[in-house]
Amino acid sequence: MSKNETKALTKRADDYSQWYLDVIEQAGLAEHSPVRGCMVIKPYGYAIWENIQRELDTRFKAKGVENAYFPLFIPESFLKKEAEHVEGFSPELAVVTHAGGEKLDEPLVVRPTSETIMYATFAHWIQSYRDLPLLINQWCNVVRWELRPRLFLRTTEFLWQEGHTCHTTENEADGFARQMLEVYREFAEDLMALPVITGLKSDAERFAGAVRTYSIEAMMQDGKALQAGTSHLLGQNFARAFEVKFLNAEGREEYVWQTSWGVSTRLIGGLIMAHSDDKGLVLPPRLAPIQTVIIPIGATPEELEATQAKATELSELLKAEGVSVKIDTREMRPGAKFFDWEKKGVPLRLELGPKDLAANSLVVVRRDTSAKSTVSEEELVDSVKDLLEQIQRDLFQAALARREANTHDVDSYDELKKAVETGFARAFWCGSAECETKIKDETKATIRSIPFDQKAENGKCVICGKKSSGRVVFAKAY
Amino acid sequence: MSKNETKALTKRADDYSQWYLDVIEQAGLAEHSPVRGCMVIKPYGYAIWENIQRELDTRFKAKGVENAYFPLFIPESFLKKEAEHVEGFSPELAVVTHAGGEKLDEPLVVRPTSETIMYATFAHWIQSYRDLPLLINQWCNVVRWELRPRLFLRTTEFLWQEGHTCHTTENEADGFARQMLEVYREFAEDLMALPVITGLKSDAERFAGAVRTYSIEAMMQDGKALQAGTSHLLGQNFARAFEVKFLNAEGREEYVWQTSWGVSTRLIGGLIMAHSDDKGLVLPPRLAPIQTVIIPIGATPEELEATQAKATELSELLKAEGVSVKIDTREMRPGAKFFDWEKKGVPLRLELGPKDLAANSLVVVRRDTSAKSTVSEEELVDSVKDLLEQIQRDLFQAALARREANTHDVDSYDELKKAVETGFARAFWCGSAECETKIKDETKATIRSIPFDQKAENGKCVICGKKSSGRVVFAKAY
Repeated sequence: MSKNETKALTKRADDYSQWYLDVIEQAGLAEHSPVRGCMVIKPYGYAIWENIQRELDTRFKAKGVENAYFPLFIPESFLKKEAEHVEGFSPELAVVTHAGGEKLDEPLVVRPTSETIMYATFAHWIQSYRDLPLLINQWCNVVRWELRPRLFLRTTEFLWQEGHTCHTTENEADGFARQMLEVYREFAEDLMALPVITGLKSDAERFAGAVRTYSIEAMMQDGKALQAGTSHLLGQNFARAFEVKFLNAEGREEYVWQTSWGVSTRLIGGLIMAHSDDKGLVLPPRLAPIQTVIIPIGATPEELEATQAKATELSELLKAEGVSVKIDTREMRPGAKFFDWEKKGVPLRLELGPKDLAANSLVVVRRDTSAKSTVSEEELVDSVKDLLEQIQRDLFQAALARREANTHDVDSYDELKKAVETGFARAFWCGSAECETKIKDETKATIRSIPFDQKAENGKCVICGKKSSGRVVFAKAY
Repeated sequence: MSKNETKALTKRADDYSQWYLDVIEQAGLAEHSPVRGCMVIKPYGYAIWENIQRELDTRFKAKGVENAYFPLFIPESFLKKEAEHVEGFSPELAVVTHAGGEKLDEPLVVRPTSETIMYATFAHWIQSYRDLPLLINQWCNVVRWELRPRLFLRTTEFLWQEGHTCHTTENEADGFARQMLEVYREFAEDLMALPVITGLKSDAERFAGAVRTYSIEAMMQDGKALQAGTSHLLGQNFARAFEVKFLNAEGREEYVWQTSWGVSTRLIGGLIMAHSDDKGLVLPPRLAPIQTVIIPIGATPEELEATQAKATELSELLKAEGVSVKIDTREMRPGAKFFDWEKKGVPLRLELGPKDLAANSLVVVRRDTSAKSTVSEEELVDSVKDLLEQIQRDLFQAALARREANTHDVDSYDELKKAVETGFARAFWCGSAECETKIKDETKATIRSIPFDQKAENGKCVICGKKSSGRVVFAKAY
């Protein structure tokens, strides 16, 4: 695991794509596996995913959602029951044709998402309105064959959660889909320190089989957009295909109204690209597996023993206050340790040498700003807690400022073309697929969001000049 | 979800197999899916799995084990690198031959276990003895094609954890394999209330590719054995196949010594069969998703409002002490609610009617013994906590007593044949595969364990009469 430690990191300005891969490699987050398109998530990367899971799972359960588990395999015929759905996923499917030494009568698809297999089951779980709402979530792996894999952002197999709910009315379902989007927004902004735009997707960007797709969209440091989470109103499309019906209070049979919503290990890609710098990974404290590293320093075994003992004592105080701490006692030069933990994005580094020990103080270094300060032992716990909160806020503010600086209201196609080279363009759009496609074909930018906070403004589509009632967000996207 | 609530449960004495399925169905734990051999784990069953995961994960991490994630797919050629391993797993493999709309150059196997894909990666993670021990665990799904599926016990897809470790010496690896078996033993006995025999497997029952397999074996209520967890010393078999080498302190290259160890959703099958009764599921309090259910009772809306308010007040006190509580406010007869929660195995039921309210007391009913007592509001929290501990201990003692009563030291083949009809037979065995096979073929009983606590005794093999130095455990097994 030590092989790459001395390699220099590519700079963002030189090659953003390579920088991203370097950050991942040198922080030890993940790597390509021998299976094309599939990644190995290494312990440090997986620890971030565990933090994401824990935080989201708590929020889902607070909404009354229960976890369950459905099969990895889906009979090919199930996928075909919803026409748009199968069309959307067909090119990406991995298919099991042989099992137990024999050819299967019907091929089994490795789930790309679980609407079809779940709803075939929901159909017999639900009898009457008393069984509704049904609020189910699943944490699992899914497979979508990927021709241009990229660690965390696009992998053939990825880990995710998929929520699936059934309701008695369209209104209730739509409300729930938006509530879950709000859970994602809050998670992205409060935990990931990642400002996001919440809004509706255009029809072209809608989930295959949905009536409406909502998303949270974030800006990465290169100005590109990352779709960080989606929540879909499925209407009754799947309910009709899978006969998911209920008896209403009047005893009449109706199809349920459904939602589905998900986020994946892609979030880790977003986390990396939102905050990291030319020294490596930068993690927001609330999701960092290690929030604070203490580095005891000493020129002699006696000095080292003394600073290590103090480090242990202080780490207990920090842990008691819920701060995660690691003491680095490896036999390495302090400078190499600093470098190592910088690459891993640990928010705070505490240096403790003999002079600090004599002065009853420590040197505290912020990962995000490199700011150093001297803190007395007495004030350490409060100071660390304050600094972690401060870093969390500052990372969010920096990301927000970057997004604001790189978002432009544009009133012509030329302006749009220029704006999407470096960030988001907010432009009037007539609502037609033709204008959307033309922009996509010519600039690679797509409509990322029809924002919820869209101002009602009268304007003219930047392509056709037809009437538009508000600006939408265009950007190139991951 | 309410369809099956009124169906009567098959009795154990009438049809043990059907009883098992009835318990699962009526408690709402799991069901067969539309995909043959794969199950749907329903929310209540999955909540038990989440409790199992949380408890085990904490114990693994305390041993220094880190979680990671490796690909679902394994190139067919990888499996073939360890000869015994591929032979053992070949008949059970599911194979992806097509993906992304094309035939694959090399078929991909859906992981039946991850030794091969992990160790191909470990080979470049490990350079020197400083990188050891490497202690990795993965929570995931695996697939082994199953011709005779049975919910939880044998399913084509199941959920599990697989630990994989690399060490510098055989001794250290063996010690670690045994430490992890001890984690499993402690978990089974302290959390699942399931007494287990720890010991070594015979060569015939060894994991494909291992040098030695250790297991924990439990007795179910029908006297059959359930292998509840295994831990393997892999020696250097896989290390040689995958070139997992390290430089030792003297700078010489050596192969690592490896272990792997796992438990699966099969544990839930064991949990069901160990404690449940003719009224349905019985859960040990430490793994029960709901430890206590409060049923407010009232003939009038006013009465109900008063008992519900009190129930809410008391539930807060219980929750503050870490007891999980559910208040059942459904519009149903109290009797139907009692029946429902009995089937779900909730350890304690608290009944709270107007008379109880007036007397500042509640009726407390144990699920395991049906014992009723009246407890004052003041004493409720302490009493509930005591009773939950008591139930946990009593379930373990009952299971232990049942195992003792159904375990027989036998000194002839006839006695063995009789003993394995109802339980475990402890018999002298010469150590030969021939005698083992003869017993298996003729009685369906296998050697479940060469127990660690085997007394050194001189005896004669029950088949061939040759010298034996200790008794081993024979039983029919799930």
